[in-house]
Amino acid sequence: MSFSPLLDELIKSLQCLPGVGPKSAQRMAFYLLDKNRSGASKLSHVLASAIDNIGHCQSCRTFTEDDICRLCLNPKRQQSGQLCVVESPADLLAIEQTAQFSGTYFVLMGHLSPLDGIGPNDIGLDILATRLAKGNISELILATNPTVEGEATAYYIAELAREQQINVSRIAHGVPVGGELELVDGTTLSHSFAGRISIK
Amino acid sequence: MSFSPLLDELIKSLQCLPGVGPKSAQRMAFYLLDKNRSGASKLSHVLASAIDNIGHCQSCRTFTEDDICRLCLNPKRQQSGQLCVVESPADLLAIEQTAQFSGTYFVLMGHLSPLDGIGPNDIGLDILATRLAKGNISELILATNPTVEGEATAYYIAELAREQQINVSRIAHGVPVGGELELVDGTTLSHSFAGRISIK
Ligand SMILES: [Zn+2]
Ligand SMILES: [Zn+2]
Repeated sequence: MSFSPLLDELIKSLQCLPGVGPKSAQRMAFYLLDKNRSGASKLSHVLASAIDNIGHCQSCRTFTEDDICRLCLNPKRQQSGQLCVVESPADLLAIEQTAQFSGTYFVLMGHLSPLDGIGPNDIGLDILATRLAKGNISELILATNPTVEGEATAYYIAELAREQQINVSRIAHGVPVGGELELVDGTTLSHSFAGRISIK
Repeated sequence: MSFSPLLDELIKSLQCLPGVGPKSAQRMAFYLLDKNRSGASKLSHVLASAIDNIGHCQSCRTFTEDDICRLCLNPKRQQSGQLCVVESPADLLAIEQTAQFSGTYFVLMGHLSPLDGIGPNDIGLDILATRLAKGNISELILATNPTVEGEATAYYIAELAREQQINVSRIAHGVPVGGELELVDGTTLSHSFAGRISIK
């Protein structure tokens, strides 16, 4: 378009958002300018502040504006002795939303991927090893994704934990609760059989 | 979530975007922080600048950071004598993309809607009347939406133009090119019949 270079730039900039193409970006730009300038202004400020201030927790690597995040600083969580390893902050949030886990986390921010040049230190395993060596972890729960890379990463981390004589567990994979058996893929069904639990 | 109030605020702020709910906003926030901080930073600046600087063209009411937009300032477009009335800047853009029209525009930024208290001056018809009175418009093309409100608005504007002895036309409505007759709704098909053109 040619009637407003600044509007062109806004439409282009909005496309930095995942899943937002030229059409959606255009719709967003018009909507914000027409209906929600205060929301847009707020977003602009919060975005700038988030980019400037949010880094990674020095203890668990999740996103936070603090040196050590609030989950890691929580004494009750520290005392639980349970440490759950996840690939991403989104995974951490998903677990938090179950309200079933009250330990601390370690967020890899990815997984091992030798072909992409992502080795142990790129996913913070040096920091994790230091945490494990401190001796206040009684159980390490591996909640990486059930993908080839996630499994390989879990296996690698399990070795680190065993070196420190720490109990290691892996979250169960199987048929989703409420899911139908015939709709589940074969790999999941295999996991489901291999991980069967005897009924007493 | 509780590990980062600033991240919570970012996820909330992103929901000012149309079509973005809590889940998408979370995905966007994590993506920007993890993969595209420079894009996010750029978006923050452009958004602030757009909100501060983009207003409405004094001549055609479309969005622009200038007093008079570049389409209105284009001498070739002024000389065409054609003025096209649309409801929104998005409609203007859609017409520009056809590259079939080389006149100027007038953007209503809405349509007449007495029940919502939106009268002629709320959609800039006072400004449009002034433009029509200047005497350099030979044809007024009504490209409002084929909705009840759009038709009523077109009718009202047609009256304004006739008072100034200006030719008025309405864009054709009918079966979309490439569309299938049986899939088109009845109202469109009625328009299509009423607007039939004799083949010579
Ligand atoms: Zn932390
Ligand atoms: Zn203009």
